Amino acid sequence: MKLTNSISKRILFLLLIVISVSCNKKEDATNDVKNEDSHPKLILTAKGVKDIRAQLGNVPIFDNTLKAVKEEIDAEIALGIDTPIPKDYSGGYTHVRHKRNMIVLQKAGVLYQILEDEKYAKYVKDMLMQYEAMYKNLPVHPKTRSYARGKLFWQCLNDSNWLVYVSQAYDCIYNYLSEEERNKLESNLFKPFADYISIGNPQFYQRVHNHSTWGNAAVGMIGLVMNDEDLIQRALYGIKGKEMDKTAKDDDGGFINKDGKAGFLANIEEPFSPDGYYNEGPYYQRYAMYPFLIFAEGLHNVKPDLKIFEYKDGVLLKSINALLNLSDADGDFFPLNDGQKGMSYYTSALVTAVDISYHYGNQDAGLLSIAEKQDRVLLDDSGLAVALGVKNGKAKPFEKKSINLSDGPKGEQGGVSILRNEDIELVFKYASQGSSHGHYDKLSYSLFEDGEEVIQDYGLSRFVNIEQKGGGNYLKENKTWAKQTIAHNTVTQNETSHYKGKYEIGSQNHPDLHYFSSEDANIQVVSSKVSKTYSGTDMHRTMAVIKDEDFEKPYVLDIMKVTSNKSNQYDFPIYFFGQVLETNFKYETPESLKPLGSKNGYQHLFVEGLGKALNGNSKFSWMSNYKFYTLTSITNTNDELLFTRIGANDPEFNLRRDPALILRRKNTKNSTFVSTIEAHGNYSPVTESAVNSKSSVKELKVLVDSDDFTAISITNIHGKTKLFITVNKKFSKNEKHVLKINNKTYSWSGSYYLQ
Amino acid sequence: MKLTNSISKRILFLLLIVISVSCNKKEDATNDVKNEDSHPKLILTAKGVKDIRAQLGNVPIFDNTLKAVKEEIDAEIALGIDTPIPKDYSGGYTHVRHKRNMIVLQKAGVLYQILEDEKYAKYVKDMLMQYEAMYKNLPVHPKTRSYARGKLFWQCLNDSNWLVYVSQAYDCIYNYLSEEERNKLESNLFKPFADYISIGNPQFYQRVHNHSTWGNAAVGMIGLVMNDEDLIQRALYGIKGKEMDKTAKDDDGGFINKDGKAGFLANIEEPFSPDGYYNEGPYYQRYAMYPFLIFAEGLHNVKPDLKIFEYKDGVLLKSINALLNLSDADGDFFPLNDGQKGMSYYTSALVTAVDISYHYGNQDAGLLSIAEKQDRVLLDDSGLAVALGVKNGKAKPFEKKSINLSDGPKGEQGGVSILRNEDIELVFKYASQGSSHGHYDKLSYSLFEDGEEVIQDYGLSRFVNIEQKGGGNYLKENKTWAKQTIAHNTVTQNETSHYKGKYEIGSQNHPDLHYFSSEDANIQVVSSKVSKTYSGTDMHRTMAVIKDEDFEKPYVLDIMKVTSNKSNQYDFPIYFFGQVLETNFKYETPESLKPLGSKNGYQHLFVEGLGKALNGNSKFSWMSNYKFYTLTSITNTNDELLFTRIGANDPEFNLRRDPALILRRKNTKNSTFVSTIEAHGNYSPVTESAVNSKSSVKELKVLVDSDDFTAISITNIHGKTKLFITVNKKFSKNEKHVLKINNKTYSWSGSYYLQ
Repeated sequence: MKLTNSISKRILFLLLIVISVSCNKKEDATNDVKNEDSHPKLILTAKGVKDIRAQLGNVPIFDNTLKAVKEEIDAEIALGIDTPIPKDYSGGYTHVRHKRNMIVLQKAGVLYQILEDEKYAKYVKDMLMQYEAMYKNLPVHPKTRSYARGKLFWQCLNDSNWLVYVSQAYDCIYNYLSEEERNKLESNLFKPFADYISIGNPQFYQRVHNHSTWGNAAVGMIGLVMNDEDLIQRALYGIKGKEMDKTAKDDDGGFINKDGKAGFLANIEEPFSPDGYYNEGPYYQRYAMYPFLIFAEGLHNVKPDLKIFEYKDGVLLKSINALLNLSDADGDFFPLNDGQKGMSYYTSALVTAVDISYHYGNQDAGLLSIAEKQDRVLLDDSGLAVALGVKNGKAKPFEKKSINLSDGPKGEQGGVSILRNEDIELVFKYASQGSSHGHYDKLSYSLFEDGEEVIQDYGLSRFVNIEQKGGGNYLKENKTWAKQTIAHNTVTQNETSHYKGKYEIGSQNHPDLHYFSSEDANIQVVSSKVSKTYSGTDMHRTMAVIKDEDFEKPYVLDIMKVTSNKSNQYDFPIYFFGQVLETNFKYETPESLKPLGSKNGYQHLFVEGLGKALNGNSKFSWMSNYKFYTLTSITNTNDELLFTRIGANDPEFNLRRDPALILRRKNTKNSTFVSTIEAHGNYSPVTESAVNSKSSVKELKVLVDSDDFTAISITNIHGKTKLFITVNKKFSKNEKHVLKINNKTYSWSGSYYLQ
Repeated sequence: MKLTNSISKRILFLLLIVISVSCNKKEDATNDVKNEDSHPKLILTAKGVKDIRAQLGNVPIFDNTLKAVKEEIDAEIALGIDTPIPKDYSGGYTHVRHKRNMIVLQKAGVLYQILEDEKYAKYVKDMLMQYEAMYKNLPVHPKTRSYARGKLFWQCLNDSNWLVYVSQAYDCIYNYLSEEERNKLESNLFKPFADYISIGNPQFYQRVHNHSTWGNAAVGMIGLVMNDEDLIQRALYGIKGKEMDKTAKDDDGGFINKDGKAGFLANIEEPFSPDGYYNEGPYYQRYAMYPFLIFAEGLHNVKPDLKIFEYKDGVLLKSINALLNLSDADGDFFPLNDGQKGMSYYTSALVTAVDISYHYGNQDAGLLSIAEKQDRVLLDDSGLAVALGVKNGKAKPFEKKSINLSDGPKGEQGGVSILRNEDIELVFKYASQGSSHGHYDKLSYSLFEDGEEVIQDYGLSRFVNIEQKGGGNYLKENKTWAKQTIAHNTVTQNETSHYKGKYEIGSQNHPDLHYFSSEDANIQVVSSKVSKTYSGTDMHRTMAVIKDEDFEKPYVLDIMKVTSNKSNQYDFPIYFFGQVLETNFKYETPESLKPLGSKNGYQHLFVEGLGKALNGNSKFSWMSNYKFYTLTSITNTNDELLFTRIGANDPEFNLRRDPALILRRKNTKNSTFVSTIEAHGNYSPVTESAVNSKSSVKELKVLVDSDDFTAISITNIHGKTKLFITVNKKFSKNEKHVLKINNKTYSWSGSYYLQ
């Protein structure tokens, strides 16, 4: 289907177009702007384009972005057009080509508007016409793996991506086309395309899910361009009158639509908490952000009365701030739930997010510093505003502080806390299930130092778009390993995952915030409780990052209090990286490695070492990234310490061979796990010097552990002792607490005591 | 032993000094320079110091280095002096403190000369006097692990390091001291110190070894400062009349002195090849370089008639060029033999090397670009010259090309070749045993892409100076794993290491160069043969890096020809990094992991997968550092393919858990292993796009494999075929070869044919 193949047939046709274009152009020039039906109007606006043209050559980031896009698209145009008959999964040629085409179309449309060079408009039109010719007779995609197969792609999701981009391209060349051409495209391509992904696939469209958001945006954006009120309404409120089976599930095990809600507004309502946290976590938020924001921008431009950016107390813009805060020092998103590591705010969706947030929000100067790092902007009004802000020296650092982000539509379904102090970032996850991409990881955490993972969250088991690994799709180990509780830095009871590893249970329960405190620069604390992860068992975890002048770097204090109505086995892993340096406990390493268990993720762990804990403090030091770390845990001689490594029962090497140390406590009802994790010192392979390679914690002790309070003493190697008391019971904000320990009385108000 | 403790006793003494100093200073001012007995004369010279003072404030790198050194030493002076009674191994406090003191003394001496501030001279004197007070009654170091225990440190080696630095400090404050003080230091500290590490420890001093080089330099440098001809002669030629036991061995299993040679000149003669390759490899060369060069600089200054930089055809300066070429794109040295990864030309010894090489060599502008990266210089004449060169914009890139470096005193004991093409660097090791730090790795290689390891050499099993790991010393896994043949990317026969893993055999044999060719920009080839690694078996390996326009990046062609007089099992590993992507052969992964064998390194490998090779080409693709790689090997259905991972029988987690794929060929006499290794494409976790993730090799075939020639065809996915013929037999440089393949006649002259 190369363009060249069909050139001969088109010569006459092209001649006709040239004439019609000339006419349109004249119309354009006389018809000055304004009118709701003028084009472009969706993302670019007639007025915006005027402003942009006026500033060209004047705003470095904008000009550079434009130059790069021009080079990219000119090269594509030189290669010719290819719209192959769809046949592949993600990563395969036809998939990659159609995905590329949608981007190219969108960019070519923008170039036409900004540069006023008709070659771009012609290119867009030619490609759209090829799509039109193909689409009208196109069957459902031959690959059958999806619950909602697309036509251009193997899933409706990708078809929707395509229409979100192509709507913008169509808007840009709308006036370049004759009415007849527009009718042809709309009747044979856009309208049936929008109908297919919505009415044709309600199991995809009619729900609250990131897939549907793309579907809604696709239908809505083409509706805005075509001025099709029917499509716009369908986008905002879902398919009119369509009732879904509330028990049906999708590929990932999520309910299709258990509440009956649908449409773009419901999709804003449900997944975002009032703080802007997106319930599937930052990786999927990043993915979902683009349709949310680009459709919102379109609605803002075409339907300003809807006040979309003010919807739900301005949650769309708040969510961008939340998302940026869910990234580490390098801008990489924390890999919560099904998140692929390495995704960062350098992704193009975040260019959209940052620019829109700046322009339609409060012109936060911190956003400009991220835009500077991204070094590119949207080629629209918002991108121009950002580029001008940067040019005028308005950028300030985007300061990430400790932050607590509630989860749930009303902010009452747990949340995520990030405790930050110097280079240490602790990500504490007490969020709700996170839709179908959630993991069974209640009260889990991960730890970062200066943007490097120290205690990792495994992330997903998938190699997105790498065809050799299961077509680039979710691997079966995502369910058997990555989602399981034992894959996370939290407690697993009796080798079973939280909520029995069942979405039905997980999605109806969640942890609750006990307290969050970040007022004191020297200590940040979060405390959360959860019940029903296991029947009859309650968990309460309090984590603090403490800056103490006797320690080189801030350290983590971790108090996990488990209470149960029966005896259980508790496994509590710490997924460290790097090289074991030293333990103060003895361990044996087996001659051959066997899996730790047979199910719930345990089948994927090899046991590399088996140790007996000490009575008092068990210590473990390791080195990673040329830095030293030490875990100090309060243990007893019945505790086992297991060195494990991921990779058992992994017949296709889908899993990374990462290590962990698991503290195993058997035959126990109530138990409080207390540890510190210190980051300390460093090693240089160039000078070969090891600095501060040893722990500064001499002794960790539980002084009190009641229903009301837990008091921990931390004595350092200089003999100085810190006392930390956390309130376990319910308390009111300024409630005064009194506790006597060894005949000394401590009193304070609020959540914790540290001295 | 803090200074403050003894202040009271010294007041009168100090008064006397103040008077004597004043006198000395006057003398200095009148006595203008020249005379062999003026000071400083060793590294700094009286004239050099004048030049330096004249340029101060004028040469940025020099000034910045000076400023940094001043800040460092001022901080040390503020902390006070500590010369603790020796008791620790490497990494322990007393070791670290004395090591630090020697550096601080040397730098303080330099500061005194350049800045003319007496506080530095006084500091040096005070510390030296504390050493004098301690040393005169100091017993041998209490730690017993070394074959040559020191006094300040657990090994004479470190004592020698100390004296090399401290000689410089003494030279700098020589004129500041009274004759009485000098006599005291020389009689009670320096002379007995020099005697102890030489006459007192001939097993350390009287040999050809990097340890002895330090010893020679230490004795020689203090001899030069003291103008003690006896010590100077002992440094240059060894202990007069001392005959060593030629069968004795040191801790590492190396012979102490099998040839009876000793002294600094013998130490230059033996380990350096005419190309400047140091027989222990770059990691130890880097370590040995400092005493070689700093003593040479001293000899050049004090004994110019010796023409030390012209010795052995200028090999000292040549060796610096060789060493710089033995680093990857980031300046990290290739970890040959016992090399710790991460050591690079940023180490201070290489600042010395680069500056001296520039100043005493041909003022190579390429060296200035490395000096710029190092961003510091020696605070002496050579450092000034470099800083001025940089300041005057003379720096040019240091271009690393393909290079062949012969090994052996006469360049006839094998060598190391580095094949470079674009971002690909292949390091082919056909060197001799490499003294006691050598590995049993004949005809092995490692592969780098843009400074990242692709196919790794394990390096050593040691965490240098990390006390928790065996005191920072060699771990037992260095012998049981790191030195063994199976730990390397070469052929192991019958699960036994080359030369039976015996140093006696290894050190008396070596591979020989067959040919090396780097004239053609599109292909670099090296070919080497070795016999006697196994009795009755010969090996011949030819490796080429080929740039072919149909391939994205240069690829590696590997031809390993093994001939034997009996049937054997051959194991041929490839130590890749990262994630298995795809194989075209089937494999099983065992439920539990068992060691591959019981000795010679095999006991450290777990078998993670067991595959059957295909008849024709077996292919294996992986991803590492977000780049793709593919191995294509000619195999038959009797071949096994084993996925292994290091870490079995490793009771203290001393080994890294790195993977390999081993091609195992059983019951075979003669066999030629042929493979290509392609680097291709990349993956972005931000855009989530996989580019060129598949191999471009369609088929690899052996067309001819005789005693005279091996001809390989490489057909790419576009159907184009390249023919590579290598000459196996002995040939003269321009000899003409003719070979008929499938009725077509190929003729060429020289070593290989490629078309």
